[in-house]
Amino acid sequence: MLTLEEARRRLLARARVTGEEEVSLSSASGRVLADPRIVASLDVPPFANSAMDGYAVRAADTPGTLRIVGEVAAGSASLPEVSGGTAVRITTGAPLPPGADTVVPLEQAGESDGAVTVPLTAPGTYVRMAGSDTPAGTEVCLPRVLGPPAIAVLASLGLARARVRSRPRIAIVSTGDELMDPGLSLGPGQIYDSNAVALAAATSEAGGEPQSLGRVPDTREAVEEALRAGAGSDLIVTSGGVSVGQHDYVRGVLEDAGSLDFWRIAVQPGKPLAVGEIAGVTVIGLPGNPVSALVTFELFVRPMIRAMLGLAGDGRLRVQARPQEPIGKDPQRQAFLRVSVWHEAGETLARSSGGQGSAQLRPLAEANALLVVPEGEEAADPARTYEAIVFGELS
Amino acid sequence: MLTLEEARRRLLARARVTGEEEVSLSSASGRVLADPRIVASLDVPPFANSAMDGYAVRAADTPGTLRIVGEVAAGSASLPEVSGGTAVRITTGAPLPPGADTVVPLEQAGESDGAVTVPLTAPGTYVRMAGSDTPAGTEVCLPRVLGPPAIAVLASLGLARARVRSRPRIAIVSTGDELMDPGLSLGPGQIYDSNAVALAAATSEAGGEPQSLGRVPDTREAVEEALRAGAGSDLIVTSGGVSVGQHDYVRGVLEDAGSLDFWRIAVQPGKPLAVGEIAGVTVIGLPGNPVSALVTFELFVRPMIRAMLGLAGDGRLRVQARPQEPIGKDPQRQAFLRVSVWHEAGETLARSSGGQGSAQLRPLAEANALLVVPEGEEAADPARTYEAIVFGELS
Repeated sequence: MLTLEEARRRLLARARVTGEEEVSLSSASGRVLADPRIVASLDVPPFANSAMDGYAVRAADTPGTLRIVGEVAAGSASLPEVSGGTAVRITTGAPLPPGADTVVPLEQAGESDGAVTVPLTAPGTYVRMAGSDTPAGTEVCLPRVLGPPAIAVLASLGLARARVRSRPRIAIVSTGDELMDPGLSLGPGQIYDSNAVALAAATSEAGGEPQSLGRVPDTREAVEEALRAGAGSDLIVTSGGVSVGQHDYVRGVLEDAGSLDFWRIAVQPGKPLAVGEIAGVTVIGLPGNPVSALVTFELFVRPMIRAMLGLAGDGRLRVQARPQEPIGKDPQRQAFLRVSVWHEAGETLARSSGGQGSAQLRPLAEANALLVVPEGEEAADPARTYEAIVFGELS
Repeated sequence: MLTLEEARRRLLARARVTGEEEVSLSSASGRVLADPRIVASLDVPPFANSAMDGYAVRAADTPGTLRIVGEVAAGSASLPEVSGGTAVRITTGAPLPPGADTVVPLEQAGESDGAVTVPLTAPGTYVRMAGSDTPAGTEVCLPRVLGPPAIAVLASLGLARARVRSRPRIAIVSTGDELMDPGLSLGPGQIYDSNAVALAAATSEAGGEPQSLGRVPDTREAVEEALRAGAGSDLIVTSGGVSVGQHDYVRGVLEDAGSLDFWRIAVQPGKPLAVGEIAGVTVIGLPGNPVSALVTFELFVRPMIRAMLGLAGDGRLRVQARPQEPIGKDPQRQAFLRVSVWHEAGETLARSSGGQGSAQLRPLAEANALLVVPEGEEAADPARTYEAIVFGELS
């Protein structure tokens, strides 16, 4: 069996970065910049302006009482001149009028009878010079993932659109004769398909565009047809059909109609993961058990989608957490235990969020982190800390 | 000036939880459950089934060599009976056939000539009993914010739709004669409006539905008209117009046409925050400087939107981070410094991501956290740790 690291390395070597597209800033949140380096085509701020509400004056005239000869508001196009012994009322963001070289804030000035008394003030005080934030021609390096602050920077540079990576199209297939759509009635031997909708949600969360190919019965022909139908996508993700049973066809179809790169990894939950390709498109065959499917999605599909967007890693925060009590695991595999982590008295604690079986979904839903416990250990040990991959809010 | 805590307490006291609506599971990701308690209307799993690919047998017949009398696959409706001395091939998830009480995995069994040799096996081994995950009638308590695992739980319970809180409608108004839309040409004294698009993105990220009311010139009439136009929303968020200048009308309009609850807070950046209401709708007047606007959004509007969704806090992860070198601040205010935090050699370090001026957007875009430094301190002190509010990925 491959280790997680080796399996993931081999998977990520298959990632091809998606193409580029242009989106308006109003729909750019969460998208990934094609190139994080943006050359500023203008000075920011574009002109010298006041950082405060107050009076624009000449520093050489301070301290003193100066005659008020006008005012300038933010957005003013015509500016009164400040000559010797005069001052101009100014608001935050308004252009510094010609002749002035400093601003005295309202709170430091006293105005009466058309004149203002100001203290000694150094030149440049409360003045934002043109280009003092970003001079024209600067190569601005933004974070690749666009959040509100990066969107604000693009807008401040006058850009109304951003060039971003196209979302990778992820074809999602559930296999299994026993599966039924939620909302319909179960027949004998049937269970509800929870993987299709959960893997689609996880795909969107990771930055991909889910394309549901629906449920596929347990026949070799149906599985092959579904995988070939997914070949127009950037990646195919299946759940089920990758174990050792007679009705597990995903791996066999990859071997016969495409190629199988590897199968089985030393990870708990999720051992029977399969990776290969069909018609040039990478296929990740996730286990069918819902916990295994979502945990292996987190460990493999999420970093794969991010790699296709040009992003490294899984984008999750890690904390060092100490289990409150032992949590048993398979000593032959690296375990990703479903835990709740929280801060308490200066340390981060973890407790099992419930049963750790690979079909026990509720404890995964109640978890906010995966506790990473190495191969070789029989249980998470309360005497030490482990890395926890945080995916939910801390309570 | 109010402290952050007092100001936020007064703001959040105004929050009214939004109504409910039903959405399909495929569009439920990130939405907030109206009621996190869901009563299971069926057993999960709905029937006893095999946890492994292998053989269904009677424990009393083990160890021994048993005649194979049939097979049962996942989704099978008709089941062969397991009587004394017999076994049935079974796949993971397939219903346990009548008579059988245990499963021997393929790896532990040897099949030849229509018979299988199995080791001593206790009753119930590798059998998932009906309702063993969730018995019908159980009150399942899910996290309020729906992620992939909670969506999977809902699907496994047969639910195709979820009742969620309506997204609060947040009217967004930028004030200022100097503002111009990105993508157009700047006139004299103009700058690009970065707040409108950034506050809309931050609103979506927090779970609200942004409704842009556009830009408003600096006249009392225009500001009042815009605030009244926002009265059909659940909350009005303005930027600019809340300082002490002659052209700052938001606060005045609140005082005259509605009511002003408080103005000015002891927070850096963001002192001139105003909160009040007009026509029964709460108005949060954010400062116009883009860094102040986004930081006060984080501190006030984000928790307000979450409170309207029935969620506590800001949903951000906190870490304790130590600044690598002093970062200066205003000793009279609690500061939220823009920093990059990262893990190194067992501790979490922070460094200023650039200038800390309230108009310096780039350092905010390059930050992944706000370092919280108390009132009274003149700088963040490298000899101790501070709480950091993490809003971006750690590199």
